[in-house]
Amino acid sequence: MSRSIGELAELVGGIVRGDSSVRVDGVGTLEGAGEGQISFLANPRYRRQLASTRAAAVILDEAGAEDYGGNAIVVADPYLAYAKIAAVLSARERHPGGIHPHASVNSAAEIHSSACVGPHVVVEEGAVVGADVYLGPGCVIGANSVIGRGSTLVANVTINEGCELGERALIHPGVVIGSDGFGLANDHGRWIKVPQLGRVVIGNDVEIGANTTIDRGAIDDTVIGDGVKLDNLIQVAHNVHIGENTAIAACTGIAGSARIGRNCAIAGGVGILGHLEITDGVTVTAMSLVTRSITRPGVYSSGTPLEENRRWHRNYARFKQLDDMARRIRELEKLVAEKSK
Amino acid sequence: MSRSIGELAELVGGIVRGDSSVRVDGVGTLEGAGEGQISFLANPRYRRQLASTRAAAVILDEAGAEDYGGNAIVVADPYLAYAKIAAVLSARERHPGGIHPHASVNSAAEIHSSACVGPHVVVEEGAVVGADVYLGPGCVIGANSVIGRGSTLVANVTINEGCELGERALIHPGVVIGSDGFGLANDHGRWIKVPQLGRVVIGNDVEIGANTTIDRGAIDDTVIGDGVKLDNLIQVAHNVHIGENTAIAACTGIAGSARIGRNCAIAGGVGILGHLEITDGVTVTAMSLVTRSITRPGVYSSGTPLEENRRWHRNYARFKQLDDMARRIRELEKLVAEKSK
Amino acid sequence: MSRSIGELAELVGGIVRGDSSVRVDGVGTLEGAGEGQISFLANPRYRRQLASTRAAAVILDEAGAEDYGGNAIVVADPYLAYAKIAAVLSARERHPGGIHPHASVNSAAEIHSSACVGPHVVVEEGAVVGADVYLGPGCVIGANSVIGRGSTLVANVTINEGCELGERALIHPGVVIGSDGFGLANDHGRWIKVPQLGRVVIGNDVEIGANTTIDRGAIDDTVIGDGVKLDNLIQVAHNVHIGENTAIAACTGIAGSARIGRNCAIAGGVGILGHLEITDGVTVTAMSLVTRSITRPGVYSSGTPLEENRRWHRNYARFKQLDDMARRIRELEKLVAEKSK
Repeated sequence: MSRSIGELAELVGGIVRGDSSVRVDGVGTLEGAGEGQISFLANPRYRRQLASTRAAAVILDEAGAEDYGGNAIVVADPYLAYAKIAAVLSARERHPGGIHPHASVNSAAEIHSSACVGPHVVVEEGAVVGADVYLGPGCVIGANSVIGRGSTLVANVTINEGCELGERALIHPGVVIGSDGFGLANDHGRWIKVPQLGRVVIGNDVEIGANTTIDRGAIDDTVIGDGVKLDNLIQVAHNVHIGENTAIAACTGIAGSARIGRNCAIAGGVGILGHLEITDGVTVTAMSLVTRSITRPGVYSSGTPLEENRRWHRNYARFKQLDDMARRIRELEKLVAEKSK
Repeated sequence: MSRSIGELAELVGGIVRGDSSVRVDGVGTLEGAGEGQISFLANPRYRRQLASTRAAAVILDEAGAEDYGGNAIVVADPYLAYAKIAAVLSARERHPGGIHPHASVNSAAEIHSSACVGPHVVVEEGAVVGADVYLGPGCVIGANSVIGRGSTLVANVTINEGCELGERALIHPGVVIGSDGFGLANDHGRWIKVPQLGRVVIGNDVEIGANTTIDRGAIDDTVIGDGVKLDNLIQVAHNVHIGENTAIAACTGIAGSARIGRNCAIAGGVGILGHLEITDGVTVTAMSLVTRSITRPGVYSSGTPLEENRRWHRNYARFKQLDDMARRIRELEKLVAEKSK
Repeated sequence: MSRSIGELAELVGGIVRGDSSVRVDGVGTLEGAGEGQISFLANPRYRRQLASTRAAAVILDEAGAEDYGGNAIVVADPYLAYAKIAAVLSARERHPGGIHPHASVNSAAEIHSSACVGPHVVVEEGAVVGADVYLGPGCVIGANSVIGRGSTLVANVTINEGCELGERALIHPGVVIGSDGFGLANDHGRWIKVPQLGRVVIGNDVEIGANTTIDRGAIDDTVIGDGVKLDNLIQVAHNVHIGENTAIAACTGIAGSARIGRNCAIAGGVGILGHLEITDGVTVTAMSLVTRSITRPGVYSSGTPLEENRRWHRNYARFKQLDDMARRIRELEKLVAEKSK
């Protein structure tokens, strides 16, 4: 649906420079945008592309606007404004409500009339599917689980028994919610399963990336706060709590009963050990291992630098001597100090 | 189903303190348990919660029992006893046997009459599904594969052609068993696929977590021993062997032809290189990389500590100088020794 | 289908030693092969098994042939020759074309008459499924996506809207292609979704391992070149480009807008940060973290060695003192030099 840049500027609280009646109906990068497309400049690195862009209009900040003579929407945060404008321009009609004839819906499930239940979906006994929910092909909604109003499960998502998803969730394909936690008791060398009897309870406005897994609690629940954003292939173990508006990048694993605060940013490939606490506002960089509680906001890291293999190997081998090296330095310091007397 | 704590004590070989006729029908944490619920104390850290728990009874050991005046079952290993008792209290009726009308079962597949085949399940030609098996929604059982008696495939599990699953397996959603191993031969820069012709053969009493993948062997089989427990999002490459009762936590990857012994405990995010051997009884800590065979039982680790980013970065940068530092220490030692002469 | 070793030698440009009329119909390892099976020797480590193998014939190079008196096919690269021969011996008939009655195909989708559409498959509006394509059970083909001629989607694969798959792709179960990239803009602490409007465009002869995920581009596309081979449980973020014939092992994660060259070999568990470039012909070893662009071909690594836990812990603790140690060495060098004056 096309919009004038005047309308779009109003939407994001921006100021138009140039012709506010120009209409756009799509987005593009500075390099790729053409007629009818709006672009944005958020990263100063791309500033030189302003000179040659063929975008119908550009979203930028005051500094960017200085370099640009074309039609523009000037805002404080161009990336945020772009997100809102792109959402409007790419909006689609809701799927019409209704249950596909190839879906299997238990007669004791409750499906709102505005919900769309796709082909090969299974909704088990006692499940509640809210208004304007979209259950894409192959999704499985376990017994007595609840899918909040306006949520979208794209395809092949599995929600196990008794779990709760808040409103406006966006769940990508292959996600598994409510699988059993990894609870084992050792009986003379054999593992005995510890029944996993809690649920997964997920707040509102949560997005979960493809093939991410969230285990149900052992006794109490696994809890994901409002506004949490999880990327792909993340593992959330039983009884983890993730605070509001925390974002976690792909391939991260969180062990049992870890508690992560609000507004944290956890990069990709991070490991977080169990039974620890991370306070609000913590950033952890890629592939770090969090082995202890973090009580102060800030940025935390572990790991070693990438090197050309042969050089790396020499340093790598020395790692085993680190403690020895430290003691030898101490020894040298003593010897040198003695001689200075 | 409710039980008296007398019955439950008998079940786990424990001794009742207090009123053995008290009945419970569920479990709870010390903090959360209420009427009709039994709890347990396994971790001394929670001992102070005994004072305020409202649980109908508590499973604990002799030491714990000293602090507690309420109804109790006293055992040597409260966590193990809890696992057994929780299993009894949460037990459900088996799903009735039968094939859902929305399942697609090949006429040349063999389905035991007591097996439950859910909606949108596919069972291909020549597959054998044993007694009391439960195939949840969307599961795919490839041609000529075998699902052992009493196994449960929760939902959306894919078992490829010719693979064998033992008895009483519990396979969580999104698991893939028998995908092709990553076998490639290089033909002047282009990759030629090496056909993956082995199977995956899985023993009895195995549990496999959500979205874990186990590749079929290249020629011989990939083999998972009895009692192995795999968490979520684990990769098991072609021709890996995992010994009996080994437990592996989430996000671990095991490369081709690695052989892991019995009773090992592999933590989360671990990498294990191919064509190596890990003996029985080995523990590997989180996010370690196993680059060589391990021939002696024990605990093994790699990695660097988590630090506040700025401090970490200073140490991280020095890692590249480690070999140089070691040589300079040696040089200093020589110089100082010479002067002492 | 059985073949004479004469025919097979011709197929791979090899020379027969022994009886070229001997027929084989399957493959085996040197240790396991029996009557009617052909084996190969590629790794000199297994050379001593030549003496006892019961294989009907062995594929080997000149050096290997010296030790072996049985029937043989002598080639320059036995592993490559094995790959080609095994492909011929294990070839199967194509699935017959047709749409399973339990599939859900939109009337505005275009399915080639030779394509096989399995049970519980969904093909949405405007999708195009080429000749000789096999869509296994439970696959979901989103609206307006294109599946190239001769491609196989094994089972439970999800291709989201508008994505393109080239010819002869082999996509293993649980793969998700075209899920939304992890694009978020921060609005006073709350995350606003950045619509993900690009596609995933995949070249010819690509193989993608089980449960791997490839996100669609934010504005432009995510691009996977011809001949790329991806193992299981890999994450490819939005706008990543992977060059031709690059192979990537399991559990690797690639962050947004990274560009990986041609003919690279990325080992398992590697992390690659976003917005960087890796040139052609780069190898990265297991569990390394690539934090910067790599402009020269070669082998790159990061990480620390595996040690017995107690020894490791002593060195690990010293890592925090590395910068301090380096400064103390410098100080000692100064002191010692002064005294030498």
